[in-house]
Amino acid sequence: MNYHVMTLFPDMIRQGMNTSIIGRAMEKGLLSLDCIDIRAFTKEKHGHVDDAPYGGGAGMVMQAQPVYDCYLHICSEIHAETKPRVIYLTPQGKTFDQKMSVEFAKEEHLIFLCGHYEGIDERVLNKIVTDEISIGDYVLTGGELAAMVLMDSISRNIPGVLHNDISAETESFSDGLLEYPQYTRPEVFEGERVPEVLLSGHHANIAKWRREQSILRTYERRPDLFHQVEFDKKDRKFIKEQLGLLLP
Amino acid sequence: MNYHVMTLFPDMIRQGMNTSIIGRAMEKGLLSLDCIDIRAFTKEKHGHVDDAPYGGGAGMVMQAQPVYDCYLHICSEIHAETKPRVIYLTPQGKTFDQKMSVEFAKEEHLIFLCGHYEGIDERVLNKIVTDEISIGDYVLTGGELAAMVLMDSISRNIPGVLHNDISAETESFSDGLLEYPQYTRPEVFEGERVPEVLLSGHHANIAKWRREQSILRTYERRPDLFHQVEFDKKDRKFIKEQLGLLLP
Repeated sequence: MNYHVMTLFPDMIRQGMNTSIIGRAMEKGLLSLDCIDIRAFTKEKHGHVDDAPYGGGAGMVMQAQPVYDCYLHICSEIHAETKPRVIYLTPQGKTFDQKMSVEFAKEEHLIFLCGHYEGIDERVLNKIVTDEISIGDYVLTGGELAAMVLMDSISRNIPGVLHNDISAETESFSDGLLEYPQYTRPEVFEGERVPEVLLSGHHANIAKWRREQSILRTYERRPDLFHQVEFDKKDRKFIKEQLGLLLP
Repeated sequence: MNYHVMTLFPDMIRQGMNTSIIGRAMEKGLLSLDCIDIRAFTKEKHGHVDDAPYGGGAGMVMQAQPVYDCYLHICSEIHAETKPRVIYLTPQGKTFDQKMSVEFAKEEHLIFLCGHYEGIDERVLNKIVTDEISIGDYVLTGGELAAMVLMDSISRNIPGVLHNDISAETESFSDGLLEYPQYTRPEVFEGERVPEVLLSGHHANIAKWRREQSILRTYERRPDLFHQVEFDKKDRKFIKEQLGLLLP
């Protein structure tokens, strides 16, 4: 996997990604990260990359030309024979989720475009962007943090990146349920004991308890997810007894 | 606003936040950022902060004691008389949105707790955390990027932080619709012209065109948001004509 980030703040991305798993995965040669400064491609003599919006309004809009030339530069660097995948980070995009993360992890190259100010001239977006992606329903100053979030998440799905035996599939969202609570030593912390079942060594009971905790937690915190899960017979019995819900 | 971040990677937060609006807002004295290394509070002689989960399973769990002592340290530093707001970043939390961002911006202190590995011992979470927050339905390596996303978003709602005339309210999501497309100079880019209405100087027509573009875009990309918007009579007429939808 080779990440290419088109940004006005290449240092922010470089520094932020070094500490994460991406730093280790780069050292192992599993992925590469190239941050390209859009400003280097402006033809404007003062180095500007933005201008006032046509039709008026507050703020500035990033101009098409520097973005387009930056994109062409990356295409020639990677010897792209087909149109590469270009992800524009924007609150106007499709909401990123774990399924998209797994899908993006299959690409050889991913180009991220980070906007700033009031956005980017629509014409260059139409020309180069293949995916408009939002990380959630909130406004951020620029696309940089969103690109970092995507790279962190996507990298976890690349074989060899996770350094221990945790496979990305055993984590949250893999079966549509939230994770169960976790406990570690000591057995008593500030007067509170670890649930007895976890100390029992009885694997089937532990698995059952964890499954039930996941179900309860998802029901309480994320009813939207709960109603999308396909429960088996044992789950449905527990849900009927504990929550008084009769699932079809 | 004073941000306090409990983390195993304080440098990642410091570096990442410097380039964003938070850097400028700190210089102006509008907010402060304090990153506290949880590892400094361990009593374990090798500096470990994690251990295997009770009940078995892959990965490691962060121990309660260093997190709790780090929290008590912050409480004494800020002379907290009431329980401060502690946000734990976790995929098991409530999904962050613009409304929560506005609400959090009213606090004097916000403490962020960033987990790593397979999570944090549930007992310390029960003791100190007031809000469990997720930035979206995807798995990240740690809470650091999520904390940075929250701080960037929340800061935009603190008076004086946005350096120009853009008020946070004119941005995406304020009226439940996605933003309209933006264009800036030149008038022709790679053969494509800016929509004529934006060059007309006719303010009412421009406002009408932008509103309609927002409506169409929200309908196409985010039907979930579209169906939550309260449209006025003029909007409903447009929606009926363009989309053939009869709204109540």
